[in-house]
Amino acid sequence: MNYIWKLTFGTPENTTPCSLFGGQMDSPALASLPQVEENPLDAEGIVFRRTARGCTLTIPVEESEAFFGTGLQLKSVNQTGLKKHLRVNSDPVADTGDSHAPVPFYVSSRGYGVYVDTARYASFYFASHTTQALSGPSPARKVADNTEELYAASQLSGKRHVLIDIPAATGVELYVFGGPDMLSAVQRYNLFSGGGVLPPLWGLGMWYRSYTRAKAEDVQRQAAMIREDHMPCDVFGLEPGWQTHAYSCTYRWNTEGFPDPQGLLDFFNAAGFRVNLWEHIFVDGDSPLYEPLLPYAGDYRVWNGLVPDYSLPQAAKLYTAYHKAELVDRGVSGFKLDECDGSDFIHTPWTFPEASEFPSGLDGEQMHCLLGTLYMRANQEAFEEGGRRTYGAVRSAGALAAPYPYVLYSDLYDIHDYIRGMVVAGYSGLLWTPEVRQCASEEELIRRLQAVVFSPLAQIDAWMIPNPPWLQYDEGKNHAGVFLEDRERLTGICRRLFELRMSLIPYLYAAFYAYKTTGKPPFRALPLDFPDDVQVRDIEDSYMVGDSLLFVPVFPGQERRKAYLPGDGWYDYFTGEHYAGGQSYEWDTADNRMLLFVREGSLLPIAEPVEFVRPDTVFSLRMVRFGHADAACSLIEDDGESLAYREGALNRIAVEWKEGAEPSVRKEGGYAGQRYAIREFVTID
Amino acid sequence: MNYIWKLTFGTPENTTPCSLFGGQMDSPALASLPQVEENPLDAEGIVFRRTARGCTLTIPVEESEAFFGTGLQLKSVNQTGLKKHLRVNSDPVADTGDSHAPVPFYVSSRGYGVYVDTARYASFYFASHTTQALSGPSPARKVADNTEELYAASQLSGKRHVLIDIPAATGVELYVFGGPDMLSAVQRYNLFSGGGVLPPLWGLGMWYRSYTRAKAEDVQRQAAMIREDHMPCDVFGLEPGWQTHAYSCTYRWNTEGFPDPQGLLDFFNAAGFRVNLWEHIFVDGDSPLYEPLLPYAGDYRVWNGLVPDYSLPQAAKLYTAYHKAELVDRGVSGFKLDECDGSDFIHTPWTFPEASEFPSGLDGEQMHCLLGTLYMRANQEAFEEGGRRTYGAVRSAGALAAPYPYVLYSDLYDIHDYIRGMVVAGYSGLLWTPEVRQCASEEELIRRLQAVVFSPLAQIDAWMIPNPPWLQYDEGKNHAGVFLEDRERLTGICRRLFELRMSLIPYLYAAFYAYKTTGKPPFRALPLDFPDDVQVRDIEDSYMVGDSLLFVPVFPGQERRKAYLPGDGWYDYFTGEHYAGGQSYEWDTADNRMLLFVREGSLLPIAEPVEFVRPDTVFSLRMVRFGHADAACSLIEDDGESLAYREGALNRIAVEWKEGAEPSVRKEGGYAGQRYAIREFVTID
Repeated sequence: MNYIWKLTFGTPENTTPCSLFGGQMDSPALASLPQVEENPLDAEGIVFRRTARGCTLTIPVEESEAFFGTGLQLKSVNQTGLKKHLRVNSDPVADTGDSHAPVPFYVSSRGYGVYVDTARYASFYFASHTTQALSGPSPARKVADNTEELYAASQLSGKRHVLIDIPAATGVELYVFGGPDMLSAVQRYNLFSGGGVLPPLWGLGMWYRSYTRAKAEDVQRQAAMIREDHMPCDVFGLEPGWQTHAYSCTYRWNTEGFPDPQGLLDFFNAAGFRVNLWEHIFVDGDSPLYEPLLPYAGDYRVWNGLVPDYSLPQAAKLYTAYHKAELVDRGVSGFKLDECDGSDFIHTPWTFPEASEFPSGLDGEQMHCLLGTLYMRANQEAFEEGGRRTYGAVRSAGALAAPYPYVLYSDLYDIHDYIRGMVVAGYSGLLWTPEVRQCASEEELIRRLQAVVFSPLAQIDAWMIPNPPWLQYDEGKNHAGVFLEDRERLTGICRRLFELRMSLIPYLYAAFYAYKTTGKPPFRALPLDFPDDVQVRDIEDSYMVGDSLLFVPVFPGQERRKAYLPGDGWYDYFTGEHYAGGQSYEWDTADNRMLLFVREGSLLPIAEPVEFVRPDTVFSLRMVRFGHADAACSLIEDDGESLAYREGALNRIAVEWKEGAEPSVRKEGGYAGQRYAIREFVTID
Repeated sequence: MNYIWKLTFGTPENTTPCSLFGGQMDSPALASLPQVEENPLDAEGIVFRRTARGCTLTIPVEESEAFFGTGLQLKSVNQTGLKKHLRVNSDPVADTGDSHAPVPFYVSSRGYGVYVDTARYASFYFASHTTQALSGPSPARKVADNTEELYAASQLSGKRHVLIDIPAATGVELYVFGGPDMLSAVQRYNLFSGGGVLPPLWGLGMWYRSYTRAKAEDVQRQAAMIREDHMPCDVFGLEPGWQTHAYSCTYRWNTEGFPDPQGLLDFFNAAGFRVNLWEHIFVDGDSPLYEPLLPYAGDYRVWNGLVPDYSLPQAAKLYTAYHKAELVDRGVSGFKLDECDGSDFIHTPWTFPEASEFPSGLDGEQMHCLLGTLYMRANQEAFEEGGRRTYGAVRSAGALAAPYPYVLYSDLYDIHDYIRGMVVAGYSGLLWTPEVRQCASEEELIRRLQAVVFSPLAQIDAWMIPNPPWLQYDEGKNHAGVFLEDRERLTGICRRLFELRMSLIPYLYAAFYAYKTTGKPPFRALPLDFPDDVQVRDIEDSYMVGDSLLFVPVFPGQERRKAYLPGDGWYDYFTGEHYAGGQSYEWDTADNRMLLFVREGSLLPIAEPVEFVRPDTVFSLRMVRFGHADAACSLIEDDGESLAYREGALNRIAVEWKEGAEPSVRKEGGYAGQRYAIREFVTID
């Protein structure tokens, strides 16, 4: 039974994330996770109520329990004592639960996860409110006229609980994921979702998105300059201007600015760039997809475009077939799927109402909860059908989204929010990038770049500026073509950061492979690795990158940085200095000093940086052991971009270095090529 | 039929604002309003849908229509093109519809009002979203299996509309209020609600709330100082410290700090102060009301206190009887009813969940929509039963709240939000005060005071500072007892502002009497008075005070102030300078210059300021005519504090001054006393 318990209350709705995206209680991968004694939840103690408003679940919890999750929450990392109303919104400004990617899943510090299978704006109260009769006798209340109510009243009185309030539904299915620890519960949820993402190798390189008004000659010039300056870059992104009309989208090349699309794609691919195209989901009247999708659209328009109902296989197939034939097969590597969230509360609201109706029978509220994932699925399929992997960006996701190779981003651009996003996303099967744009200062640019290279998608998003920010970070001057006087110095700083990213590709690739096969998030909050240390629960400004690295971002203006290091011991990645765990330290962070720590006992593969990943790239590795204890790591070797790995064309390379022995390297698997050459083994102590 | 149309869709909920607070379609006062030709709404064109989520109404509107209302909205004044989700929330931070006092009522520039009788968090889309088929043919959609759906689809296609999305309900009643202009529609809504508020005369004087930790000797010392310094003050407010326990409330005097409550009340009343007491609605275990209210409380606690269900007459009677006997009859003049809103999305959320259950059958969402008004009603009743008027403050209100003598306020303290509150409140039967607290600068204190004296309740709320802000506006220094060196100068400036307020009491009293009897809001946005001038629709920083005054607040840091003056002509209240209407002007606002304009053709009663209103106060009036046209005004004369006016003990004094004739004064009514002595008539031109 894989330690996932499904509980059904009342009559659940027909359309839920599980109904559309599956929910694999019997995934073979689940067998690798630890055993659990019994359902960690007091299932008998759960109170279910149907109301005029929908239904509620009240789940008794213990005094000491803490709660994490609910998707991308940019204003809080520890949900204990808080309420979250999970409403899809691209412009959240407070800690309400409004989010690009709310997810009705949470994990408890007691070591279990709870997923509520709903496509509604559910509210979660994490022991934030108190029922009657905590002190004093239970009050006399209206006479219950059925046993359910009597039971409910006696169960609830004064107990600490999680309240889940689900609108509209007359019932719901609840999935409980055993741990025994939080990380295992999250892994179980991710495997239930279908497993995490294995991006193509090139997806882990550097990304650059160009100015939205750039034309073909502009982007070619920029691409050439990137190569001339030896700035590592694997992916070059085109913003809305590539289309004849965006807002809403035609998905057709604008041949005025881009007279030879195939030539342009060929140029990029020949220069080792993968091309990523911006689009959103709303279909313009001038799109070839408009007429075909008309019967499958909702009753409201957005930016005068159709809102296609991609929960209908016929509609999704139209989208997939067009994208495969016209874009993917011609050399596009991936997409940036914008504005699948919606923003109702700004100066000019856009998106469809929650009361919209869709041909499948979905209403607007449900569609908002599902749209991002439906969109990712239809888009990914254009690659799957050709046997290729993709990696891209998306502005909305939801439940069960772990298997989709898209990384969340936002226009909000508050750096503290962005780092919180890095901390929380991994609790709920999400990936997030704090992408870098123009900046107010050199320091801000560098600090943001430091963070983005320690994210799932290391993207410079220059869509608002015509020139790369390392030439000029100021938006106005960038537009005016006024470059920094000492731009070579800043370019050098940025290049070294990009190279740092490139040197970690083998390490990150293995971490993502673990995400795919075991559900372990490659980027994650400290409580997942240090569940017994209550001091890490509220840390909102540092996070794990894989199993060995702890990244402590420094914020602009922070001349000194204080941080807590959990666990046993750590080494400064750059200086090799050793720190005992379980303590807080403060560092002088002048001169843009970065703080990156390697867990004691790690064996870290550090690659000679390449400028971009070629099909035949062989990474030259330095295997660095931190401390003298037995250390091991995995490397994943395959073609890095096709789906052949699913059929066994992949090697797992186990590198071990035991104290007092020579390092050993064991390879197993069915991939015939070679991706890694180990140059040396060294020990830091 | 009074030009109010009631439309019923589906099966409305049992509990709505109308079910609890009435809704007087046959109020005799309605007869005084202008006639209307026909229902201004295309009632046949309204599409009603029931959905799993609740129900929706789609109301066709014209291209040019603009929409105002939805209660207290601190982030926008013109709702056209926006969506508002009317959720009760004491900490709104964006223009979402979250509000202390959302009201499901709006007025259209076409001259009608629409009230949706619901106690749900309804969403209103004011022509903000576009249905399918605005351009191009109507798409093929799922085959409708009933005529309602077919009809709905054809009706909606491409039309501009207001969409109202009501959760949980299977039906709703809609009330349409004829105009023919917006102001008449608002008046009709207010009279339908029961008419506006007539405060006691003293309520229109100055208010001072003291430090929350002040004890009896502190407040007595402050009160004495206020009188010594001749700072006008009618009402002295005590904050939570008067109770043995607040958060939650005992409603019992804390005899440690206040050893002789009756003596204290007598002291204040003898010194001409009315005493106002802070409280909130949550009943502490140590309150005499706890045990009696236990059977009438909801299933959740707030601050460990009961949430009483005052929709039950038995519960409300317990509250009323206690307050009357223990507080009102002993000399308390009114209350500040705090925290009847709720805040779910802050660091420590408080309030009951929307899924709460109450003994009456109300759920938490409904109770949130009704709580403020239920609380006001129970509180007011403690005065009504003794034949007295009250005037107080409240943190939440909702639909049909116009008759309750309480003024909304907030802790948010952004001065632009506060002025927006002054602009919008009058659209929806609400009163609002931008109360003044500590400030960052002398200029801020003065600018805020200028605005608060042109509000329904001119309150200095010093609950966070132990000394009056005119001695020290800085919070830290105020606590340290460090007063301004030139405090006499600032005290003098403040005194003159207070005196300005006192001089307008007769004018304001007449405006409130019109609110009571004709529903005309005493403070209102310019579109209500100038409905044909599209330039005033988005003005969020000036408003009418009665029929004659246009107040243009100047914000801290504004060295010059630009403003548009609508209508025909205006006079600067202070300089007498004349301005043609229909133009924008810019003024030098150095030296805290105020901008207050008197409408050309007004006859304004300006009183010699008193320090406070006594039962026998006779206001010495200067009647000032602005311009030479025929001018008239009303004065309302009664005892100013009892309910005897309802039985006819009130005089209407009609003052007329026709061009080329002597002024005339005609008095009619059954009040035997005298409240006004006209000292002189003067003309400004």
